[in-house]
Amino acid sequence: MKPTLKSRPETASLLAFGAHPDDIEFGCGGVIAVETRAGRAAHFVICSRGEAATHGTRAQRTSEARRSAALLGATVEFLELDGDAHLERRVAHAIKLAGALRRLRPGIVLAPTPGENQHPDHSRLGQLVRDAARLARYGGVRELRANAPHAIGTLLFYAVTPEAEPAIETPMLIDISAPEIVAAWTAAMEVHVSQTRARDYVELQLTRARLYGLRAGVGHAMALFPNDPVVFDSLAHVCRGARGF
Amino acid sequence: MKPTLKSRPETASLLAFGAHPDDIEFGCGGVIAVETRAGRAAHFVICSRGEAATHGTRAQRTSEARRSAALLGATVEFLELDGDAHLERRVAHAIKLAGALRRLRPGIVLAPTPGENQHPDHSRLGQLVRDAARLARYGGVRELRANAPHAIGTLLFYAVTPEAEPAIETPMLIDISAPEIVAAWTAAMEVHVSQTRARDYVELQLTRARLYGLRAGVGHAMALFPNDPVVFDSLAHVCRGARGF
Amino acid sequence: MKPTLKSRPETASLLAFGAHPDDIEFGCGGVIAVETRAGRAAHFVICSRGEAATHGTRAQRTSEARRSAALLGATVEFLELDGDAHLERRVAHAIKLAGALRRLRPGIVLAPTPGENQHPDHSRLGQLVRDAARLARYGGVRELRANAPHAIGTLLFYAVTPEAEPAIETPMLIDISAPEIVAAWTAAMEVHVSQTRARDYVELQLTRARLYGLRAGVGHAMALFPNDPVVFDSLAHVCRGARGF
Amino acid sequence: MKPTLKSRPETASLLAFGAHPDDIEFGCGGVIAVETRAGRAAHFVICSRGEAATHGTRAQRTSEARRSAALLGATVEFLELDGDAHLERRVAHAIKLAGALRRLRPGIVLAPTPGENQHPDHSRLGQLVRDAARLARYGGVRELRANAPHAIGTLLFYAVTPEAEPAIETPMLIDISAPEIVAAWTAAMEVHVSQTRARDYVELQLTRARLYGLRAGVGHAMALFPNDPVVFDSLAHVCRGARGF
Amino acid sequence: MKPTLKSRPETASLLAFGAHPDDIEFGCGGVIAVETRAGRAAHFVICSRGEAATHGTRAQRTSEARRSAALLGATVEFLELDGDAHLERRVAHAIKLAGALRRLRPGIVLAPTPGENQHPDHSRLGQLVRDAARLARYGGVRELRANAPHAIGTLLFYAVTPEAEPAIETPMLIDISAPEIVAAWTAAMEVHVSQTRARDYVELQLTRARLYGLRAGVGHAMALFPNDPVVFDSLAHVCRGARGF
Amino acid sequence: MKPTLKSRPETASLLAFGAHPDDIEFGCGGVIAVETRAGRAAHFVICSRGEAATHGTRAQRTSEARRSAALLGATVEFLELDGDAHLERRVAHAIKLAGALRRLRPGIVLAPTPGENQHPDHSRLGQLVRDAARLARYGGVRELRANAPHAIGTLLFYAVTPEAEPAIETPMLIDISAPEIVAAWTAAMEVHVSQTRARDYVELQLTRARLYGLRAGVGHAMALFPNDPVVFDSLAHVCRGARGF
Repeated sequence: MKPTLKSRPETASLLAFGAHPDDIEFGCGGVIAVETRAGRAAHFVICSRGEAATHGTRAQRTSEARRSAALLGATVEFLELDGDAHLERRVAHAIKLAGALRRLRPGIVLAPTPGENQHPDHSRLGQLVRDAARLARYGGVRELRANAPHAIGTLLFYAVTPEAEPAIETPMLIDISAPEIVAAWTAAMEVHVSQTRARDYVELQLTRARLYGLRAGVGHAMALFPNDPVVFDSLAHVCRGARGF
Repeated sequence: MKPTLKSRPETASLLAFGAHPDDIEFGCGGVIAVETRAGRAAHFVICSRGEAATHGTRAQRTSEARRSAALLGATVEFLELDGDAHLERRVAHAIKLAGALRRLRPGIVLAPTPGENQHPDHSRLGQLVRDAARLARYGGVRELRANAPHAIGTLLFYAVTPEAEPAIETPMLIDISAPEIVAAWTAAMEVHVSQTRARDYVELQLTRARLYGLRAGVGHAMALFPNDPVVFDSLAHVCRGARGF
Repeated sequence: MKPTLKSRPETASLLAFGAHPDDIEFGCGGVIAVETRAGRAAHFVICSRGEAATHGTRAQRTSEARRSAALLGATVEFLELDGDAHLERRVAHAIKLAGALRRLRPGIVLAPTPGENQHPDHSRLGQLVRDAARLARYGGVRELRANAPHAIGTLLFYAVTPEAEPAIETPMLIDISAPEIVAAWTAAMEVHVSQTRARDYVELQLTRARLYGLRAGVGHAMALFPNDPVVFDSLAHVCRGARGF
Repeated sequence: MKPTLKSRPETASLLAFGAHPDDIEFGCGGVIAVETRAGRAAHFVICSRGEAATHGTRAQRTSEARRSAALLGATVEFLELDGDAHLERRVAHAIKLAGALRRLRPGIVLAPTPGENQHPDHSRLGQLVRDAARLARYGGVRELRANAPHAIGTLLFYAVTPEAEPAIETPMLIDISAPEIVAAWTAAMEVHVSQTRARDYVELQLTRARLYGLRAGVGHAMALFPNDPVVFDSLAHVCRGARGF
Repeated sequence: MKPTLKSRPETASLLAFGAHPDDIEFGCGGVIAVETRAGRAAHFVICSRGEAATHGTRAQRTSEARRSAALLGATVEFLELDGDAHLERRVAHAIKLAGALRRLRPGIVLAPTPGENQHPDHSRLGQLVRDAARLARYGGVRELRANAPHAIGTLLFYAVTPEAEPAIETPMLIDISAPEIVAAWTAAMEVHVSQTRARDYVELQLTRARLYGLRAGVGHAMALFPNDPVVFDSLAHVCRGARGF
Repeated sequence: MKPTLKSRPETASLLAFGAHPDDIEFGCGGVIAVETRAGRAAHFVICSRGEAATHGTRAQRTSEARRSAALLGATVEFLELDGDAHLERRVAHAIKLAGALRRLRPGIVLAPTPGENQHPDHSRLGQLVRDAARLARYGGVRELRANAPHAIGTLLFYAVTPEAEPAIETPMLIDISAPEIVAAWTAAMEVHVSQTRARDYVELQLTRARLYGLRAGVGHAMALFPNDPVVFDSLAHVCRGARGF
C-alpha cells in the first residue's frame, strides 16, 4: 500500500513546512542536518516571507532563508498563503499544500505542532499540513487532479518554541550531537541575523537541545512528535530509551 | 554510557517479565516471535505459577509456560515474589528483580503496563520492574553487590488486555504480520489450554492485533508503550506512520 | 425544561449527521439498527455526496446511502454544505444545521467525534453539530425564526474510525450483539460497494465492534462518546460495567 | 456470564464502602436515598470508626453511622482494616474486602474515588475495593474459598469532597432532586453531629449537589464516576444530557 | 522587556473582553470588584449586543451592560465583530482586538476560556484574544501601525459557566469574600434583568463561587486560568493553598 | 482558620523535604536562596544519607548536605525512614513526617513531585509528605499527640530531574536570576562533589533553569508545582505571565 517507503525508507525524501523563513531551522534544523548528511534529499516549503515580524524586510528574510537552507543541504521554495500573521485555516490552503505534497511526493513530512497556544501561524500551518496529508491521497478532489494521489510515509511535528511542545505526548528524540551537525545547525540559525539580533533565539534552541541531550545521555537532541503511531518491523531500532537521570 | 546497545542494538538480548504464566504470550507474544526469529535472544521471568486463577493447577500452568516459551524461541525461569493475586509493591521485590536484571544484563526489557485499573498483579509488576531498572544501575545498593550495575537500553510496556493500554500515550506498533509469526504466536497462546478453554483469550488478542494491523495497513500489529522517550540516530527507521484510514 | 424527553425518552426520535454517505453506517450503524428495531424513529442528514473519494460517483454514492439507510430502518436527506473534502467551520453552516434541528426536533443527536486528527470533514461536522445544538435553542438568532427553538435531549458522538475515538473520555458501550442487528448492520455497510471494494472498511468496523464486545462480555458492541454528562433518574440502567477481562 | 444483573438489574443489591463513618453519606448519600426509596436493598461496609478525626469518639461516630444508614434505608456493618488514618494498601485487605463481596454478592458497588490527592484513607479504600472486585471473581484465591466467586455488575466511584473528583473523566449525574430525597440525605448528613459542628460539611455537599443540579437543569444531582465503560442495551436510558447553560 | 509591569504591577490596568453584555459579570465580576476597589483601572470590551439571546433587545442589553460595569467600577466600550451567535475565528478580528490592546495598553487581560464545548462565541473570543495578544507585540503587522506594539503582562481566562472550566489545568483562586465585594458583584449580575428573569444565572454563579470558597476556607472565591505559567519574584505571595477539606 | 499565614505570609517559615542529601539543592536550590536572602527561615529534612548511590560514603554525603544547606542559608536535619533506595510508602512514615510538620510548624512545604516515573524514593517521599500534610492537622491521630495539630499554608512540589516534572500541570515559575542567587545555588550544588564528579548534574540543572528563564524573559527561573489551587487576595501578584517567545 505504501510500497516506496516500506521497501526503501532510507531514500525517501523529506519535506519540511515552515510558516516563516526561520521556523524550520529553529524547530528542527539539527534533524535536517542529520538527514541531509546521511544522503536524504530535503526540501523546504515556506509559507510567508516573515513580513510581520518586528525586524527584517521581506527581501532580507527571503535571502536569509535561502542561505540557511543551503547550509543545511536543503532546497527551498516559497508558497504564499495569507501572508505572515494572517494565516487562516481554509480548505483552499489545505488543498494548495496537498498539491505540493502530490508534486513533491515526500516520504517524511515535518510541520509545526498544531497546538494552539503559540504563534497562530505555527499552529494553523501544522493543522493545514495534517489536513493536506489526507487530501493528497483522496482520488476525487477536483482541484488536485493535475498530479496522482500520494500517501506520505509519516507526519512528524516539530515545536518552534518550548511552549509549542505538546504537554502529554511522548516525543521521539533524534540524536544530533555529532559536532559537525551542531555546527551546521548553529550556522543555519545564525544566518537569520534580522531575528537573532533582537532575541536570544539561538541560545534558546541550543539550550533546549542540550537539555534533551543531557536527559538522553548524548550531547544534543531534538524532539519530534509523530502525528500517528509509528510502525516498526522489529525492536532493532527502538532500543535506546532516554533515561540519563 | 550505554556502549553495548549503542554499538550493537541488534544483538542486545531481550528480557520479558510476566506476572502469570500466560501474560507475556497474551500481551506481546507476537513481538517475541519477531525478535527471536530475527536472532535475538529472549528470556522470560515469570513471577507466579498462576495458582489463583479459576482454572489450572500450578503444575499445569508451569508446564504450559515452558512449552509456550519454547514455541516462541525463548528460555524461561520462575522468580517467586508473593504468589498469584498476592503481589505487593515492596522494595525487596524491586531489588530481587534488579538482581535479575544485573544477572541477565538485557538490552530490551518488556513488562506489563503500570496503570492500575487491571489485574493488580499486572500493574504492580510493571511498577516493580520500572523501579528495578533504576536500582539495577545504582552502585551502592548493598543487596545487589553480587553483580555489577547494569543500565538497560529501554523499558517497553505491553498491555495484557485492552483495558490495560494507557489512554493517552501514543503506542509504537510492531508489525507482526508475517504468517509464520502469527502462527507461532497463536500456537504459543493456545498452549495455555487451562485458561483458553474457559475464556476467549486467543480471539481477544488476535482481534486486538488485527485491529492495530488494519489501522496500520498491515496484517497484524502489536502495541508497545515506551517508558521513556526513544532516542533515534536518524529518521531512517521512523518513517512508517500508522494512518491506514 | 425538557418535558418531552423526560416524560417519554423511549419515543424521542433520533437524528444522525454524517459528512459522507457511509459515515453513519460505519461509525454507529449497529446502534441505529438497535434503535429502529426497538421502534424509535431515525433520520439521517448527510452533508455531502462523497464526491472527493477515490472511488464512486455522486450518483452511486447517493444511491448507496439511500439503500443503506433503508436497511437500517432510517429515513435520509442530503444537506449540502461545502462539498466533500471542502467542509469549513462556518457559522452559516452551524445555523443551517440548527435549522434542521428545529425542523426535525430530535431527542437524540449523533454526530462524528470533533477531535481533529482524522478526515477533516468528520471533525468539522462534529464541531458544527455541537455548535448547532446550542444555536437551535437561542431564541434570537434571526436566520432561525422560521421554526421554534428546540433543545435536544443529548448529543452523542460516534467515531468513524478507531483513530477518531477520543483518547481520554470513557465511552458508553451499546450492546449490538443480537444476530439480526449484526446482520442488518453488516448488510448496511456492504451496500457501500464503491468504498468497500477498495478497502477493508467492513472488516475494520466488525473487528472494532467485536473487540468492544469481547471486553464487555457480549458479542459485539459499539462505543459512543457523550458531549455532556448524562443524567440518570437512578442506577437502574447503569449497572452493567464492561469488565470482561 | 453475568446472568443475574442482565436479567434483573433493578433488583440487584447495592453495596457501598466507606473509609469513615460519614464518607458514604457525604459522598453519595443522595444516590443511596434514591435507590432505597425505589426498593433496592443497600448495605454499607465502613472500614474504621473515624477515631483519628479531630472531633468525636469511636462510640459517638459508630452510633452516628448506624442512625444515618437507617435514615437512608440501608443496613450497615463495620469491617476493620488498619484503623482511621492508618489504612495501607495491602493485598490482605483487598482479600478481606473480596470476601465481603463474595458474602454479600452485590450487583452495584460504590467506593471512594482512587485518586491520591485527598484523605489517604479514601483513595486507598477506593484502590482496595477495585482490586477486591477482581479478586472476588478469581476461583483460585485460597483465602476466599469459603464463598463462591462473584462478579459484581458495576463499580462506581463517589467523591467525598470536590477535590476528590477525577479531573478528566466525565461523570454520570444522578438526579436526586425529589424533595423527600434531598430531605433524607440532608438528615443523614446532619446525624454526624460530631463532624458537622466543626466544619461546613453539609453546606459543602449541598452546594456541590446544587451546582450539578443547576448544570443539569434539575434541583440537585450527584456525580458518580464509573470504573469501566457502562454497557447499555439501547439509547432508551441515556438520552438526557446535562446541558443547562 | 516588560518594564511597566515588573516595576509597578499594582498600577497596571486591567482589560476584560466579553462576547456578550453579561459574560464578564457572570464569569469574573467578583474579581473585577476586588481590583477596582483596590484602585486598579478596569475597562470592558464587549463584542456583541447579545442580540441572539432568547430574551432582551439590543438596547436593553447595552444599557444593562453599561449600568453593570459602572457598579463594578469599570468603563466599557463595544467593539463589533460578527454579531451575537455569529462570531467566527478570523484573523481580521484578532487584528482588531490587537488594535484595542495597543490602544488601551493593559497589563492584565481577562478573556473567556478557549475550550470549545460551550457557547461558540465564548470559546472563539478566548481564542481570538489569545491570538491578539501575540499580534499586538509584533512590529510589522501593517494594519496595526497606528499604535506602538504592546506586550501585555498576563492573559487570564475566566469561565462563563462551570462547563467552560478547563478540566485539567489547576485554577488560581481569587478570594472575593469581603461582603462589599460579593454585594457589588451580585448587584452587577442582577442588573442583567433581561437574562436573569428566565434562568438562574445569579444563583449558578454564586453557588459556583461559594463552592470554591468552601474548598479554600473562605466565603466566596472565583477561579481564573492562566494562559502561561505565572512568574513570581518569590514565594511571598503564593503561600495559601486551597485545602479546606 | 489559617491565621498565621493569612496575616503574615512573608514571615511564614519554609520546610523542604529531600529523599537524598542533594535532592533539595538540585530540585529547588535557587528558590531556597531567594527565600532565605529575603529573610525567610528555611529548614531541610533529609530522609537518607544517599548511601545507595554509586559514589560517595554516608559520611561524605552527610557532610556535603550540611555545607550545602549552610550556603543556601538553611538549617538541616536527618530523619531516617527506610534508607536510600529502600523507601516504602508506609503510614508509619507519613506519621513520622507529620510529626516533623507539627514540631516545625512551617507555612510553606516543598517536596519532590509524586509522579512515579523517576527515582522511586523521590516519588514516594512526595506522596508521603502529601499524606503527612493531612495527618498533621487531624486531631485524633494517637501517635501525634505530643504536638498540637498544624495546618500548613501550601504544599509545593519540586522536580529533581526534568523527567519528574508533571506533564500536564502548569508550573509556577520563580525568578532566580539575580546573580548572587545563581551563584549561591551553583555553589550549593557544587558542594556535592561525590555526585557531580560522575555526572553533569550541575549543568543539567542550570540548563533547565536557563531554559525556563529564556521562556520567561529573565535570566534563570525554577518551576514549582502546587498540590492545590493557590488562593490570592487579588491580581496584584499574578500579573507576569511567562511568554517570552
